[in-house]
Amino acid sequence: MTYNTLAWTVGDDGVLLLTLNRPEQLNSFTVEMANELVDAFTRASDDDAVRAIVVTGAGKAFCAGMDLSVPGNVFGLDESQQPTLQDMQERLDDPAIFNGVRDTGGRVVLSIFNCKKPVIGAINGAAVGIGATMTLPMDIRLASEKARIGFVFGRIGIVPEACSSWFLPRIVGISQALEWTYMADIFDGHEAQLGGLVKAVYPADQLLDEAMKIARRIASERSAVGVALTRQMMYRNSAQPHPLAAHQVDSLAMFYTSVGDGKEGVQAFLDKRPAQFGSKASAMPPFYPWWE
Amino acid sequence: MTYNTLAWTVGDDGVLLLTLNRPEQLNSFTVEMANELVDAFTRASDDDAVRAIVVTGAGKAFCAGMDLSVPGNVFGLDESQQPTLQDMQERLDDPAIFNGVRDTGGRVVLSIFNCKKPVIGAINGAAVGIGATMTLPMDIRLASEKARIGFVFGRIGIVPEACSSWFLPRIVGISQALEWTYMADIFDGHEAQLGGLVKAVYPADQLLDEAMKIARRIASERSAVGVALTRQMMYRNSAQPHPLAAHQVDSLAMFYTSVGDGKEGVQAFLDKRPAQFGSKASAMPPFYPWWE
Amino acid sequence: MTYNTLAWTVGDDGVLLLTLNRPEQLNSFTVEMANELVDAFTRASDDDAVRAIVVTGAGKAFCAGMDLSVPGNVFGLDESQQPTLQDMQERLDDPAIFNGVRDTGGRVVLSIFNCKKPVIGAINGAAVGIGATMTLPMDIRLASEKARIGFVFGRIGIVPEACSSWFLPRIVGISQALEWTYMADIFDGHEAQLGGLVKAVYPADQLLDEAMKIARRIASERSAVGVALTRQMMYRNSAQPHPLAAHQVDSLAMFYTSVGDGKEGVQAFLDKRPAQFGSKASAMPPFYPWWE
Repeated sequence: MTYNTLAWTVGDDGVLLLTLNRPEQLNSFTVEMANELVDAFTRASDDDAVRAIVVTGAGKAFCAGMDLSVPGNVFGLDESQQPTLQDMQERLDDPAIFNGVRDTGGRVVLSIFNCKKPVIGAINGAAVGIGATMTLPMDIRLASEKARIGFVFGRIGIVPEACSSWFLPRIVGISQALEWTYMADIFDGHEAQLGGLVKAVYPADQLLDEAMKIARRIASERSAVGVALTRQMMYRNSAQPHPLAAHQVDSLAMFYTSVGDGKEGVQAFLDKRPAQFGSKASAMPPFYPWWE
Repeated sequence: MTYNTLAWTVGDDGVLLLTLNRPEQLNSFTVEMANELVDAFTRASDDDAVRAIVVTGAGKAFCAGMDLSVPGNVFGLDESQQPTLQDMQERLDDPAIFNGVRDTGGRVVLSIFNCKKPVIGAINGAAVGIGATMTLPMDIRLASEKARIGFVFGRIGIVPEACSSWFLPRIVGISQALEWTYMADIFDGHEAQLGGLVKAVYPADQLLDEAMKIARRIASERSAVGVALTRQMMYRNSAQPHPLAAHQVDSLAMFYTSVGDGKEGVQAFLDKRPAQFGSKASAMPPFYPWWE
Repeated sequence: MTYNTLAWTVGDDGVLLLTLNRPEQLNSFTVEMANELVDAFTRASDDDAVRAIVVTGAGKAFCAGMDLSVPGNVFGLDESQQPTLQDMQERLDDPAIFNGVRDTGGRVVLSIFNCKKPVIGAINGAAVGIGATMTLPMDIRLASEKARIGFVFGRIGIVPEACSSWFLPRIVGISQALEWTYMADIFDGHEAQLGGLVKAVYPADQLLDEAMKIARRIASERSAVGVALTRQMMYRNSAQPHPLAAHQVDSLAMFYTSVGDGKEGVQAFLDKRPAQFGSKASAMPPFYPWWE
């Protein structure tokens, strides 16, 4: 894949390294980058050559936030055309709404949320505004010693976006989420780790290796269908009001994986050899997606 | 505002200091205090002179729990009039239910939950029973070295109230919430911090300064509408079953703040000067409240 | 009670010690054990002699996972009979679904979830696969220095089950839940404690004493009805989209406990003597279960 704002590299190891690639602009976010990210995560979700994804930034920054120098980057609608919640519920893909009102960061985050592949965020530098919120639907975040993270929306009088009000409290709890968004301060990887936002902090030159290690293990050792189901089950079932909803999906997912990759998995375990799983995320079980 | 059980002080800095003010009774909770708290948070929500709220206790205690010396403090209904869940769902404001059955702590907590202003709890001493649960809908809790916190309901054979079964697991996780309520022990600020209940512990004479510092920054540096939306988005969107619900509200909130305080915010950022936001929480965008 | 795979011991202290009791097979999980666990938790829920429950394993292990040596342990249905989500929603107790598709671990976990008595997990050794996920609906988990915990489903190409996608993110947050299930590594009690999965780690010979201490305090000092309500309120109310749902149940629960065990509780408090609560979990208030 060739993109203007991203670098897409898939290795033989099944890991897609997706690099935000506007280093001279500190990888600041544009509508073009949003559209390319949606395209990349949608493709990666169905591309069987991709088994896990690492996201990082080219150069010094991860993503320094919305590119405020590009006019019309945010909204095409006039203030007089007041959109309503009903518009947002019924006309999400109407071009006037899609291009004029829908939060671009949110479109990216929803494409990451829907992706069948695990996503590791490698925060190598400034991750500010949408640069911070786009990491929230990534399953595991690692930071380098140079990471500078900020939910800075309040500084410029706007609100945290990109579905961060759904993700951030699930990751760090409601009080930390409110504190970081009210204060709008920029903090380093160690504070992020203390708050539960990142798993670990590494020297700058080790960050990508550590992220790739995690991704490669998932890519080489796991069932593609098993991992895709696990990812969607964790995010979606945990948000249901009763564990019975999880039980219904668990039962189907166990049934299908047990007669699928699970057969090889159990045999390999009994034979004390590495398993060779054959399933593909492009061919999910018939009940998937179960929420439709 | 003049209250019998509260002191209401708003500074030029936009911070409302709300003090539980029955120091001889260790600020213990009565129906009068409940009604005054509901009134105070409802007023503060719409009063543009109030940009952030700090809650603390006068004298030695924060709030030593329900005042058990006042007869009829809890319930007006007779045991023979068995209320049902349907009553609670359909007749919440019927005086027999409102005065006789509805948990008074819960009425206070719902008024804090609905408030458009950030709330900082400064726990200066004993915060026991309703004194502990009333702090849960406060966005950030700070404790002094003299704080003594306890979800002690189990000691007297009753249940945790004031919507604490909704808030406490969101703040500290389900296992810590169950442990504290089963054990019903009283613990200090350091244990509260370890468990994720308070952000930090300060010497008694610094507690209020630290709480005011946070509140003043929000009051002076943030957009009133932006903060009101952020607060409600975090609590409400995170409890939805799918991030799409957040995306719909995010999009509207970004649209309105971007054509409102966001214009000044971006310009001030480009000019490298402090922003002067003009929005008022008494005039929220037309989609607010979106959940109605 | 006499079981083949469990030991059931209730002391005068009101604590049920439930021991997974296939030590030669490292307490590995079978359909028989699943059925006996469902029976035991269902009985314990209504047996007034049981006030709190401790679960541990006989011998070296807690539960080493599904017994892979027993044929047909997992699924009775043929791959060609593709169950659907609709089947799972409408025919959960149809024998073909119940015996052929429904996840056995999930049936156990739902019986623990529905139990009116607090459950303490004492993880004395290997707790792997279903041995790990069955501990998630236990309210407090303690580990010994010999605990070895693993959500290892990914190793054999299957998915985490037993409603773990509902429970694990509520206990440890979504990112830790995804990391542990993707990596499928086995970790010790200290890592479990760091991640928020267990409350504390004890030397092997102290583990059971510590678990019994917690259970005995609940059994001897708490109201049976108060504790049963508290347990169900915490799990169920916290998963609702709005705190009003908690307020409705809180109000009823406070009304009934205040005119029940709460009378004795307040009097004992005023008299400075231990309370003697008389309520029984076999006779819950008329609004219970409120979710039906």
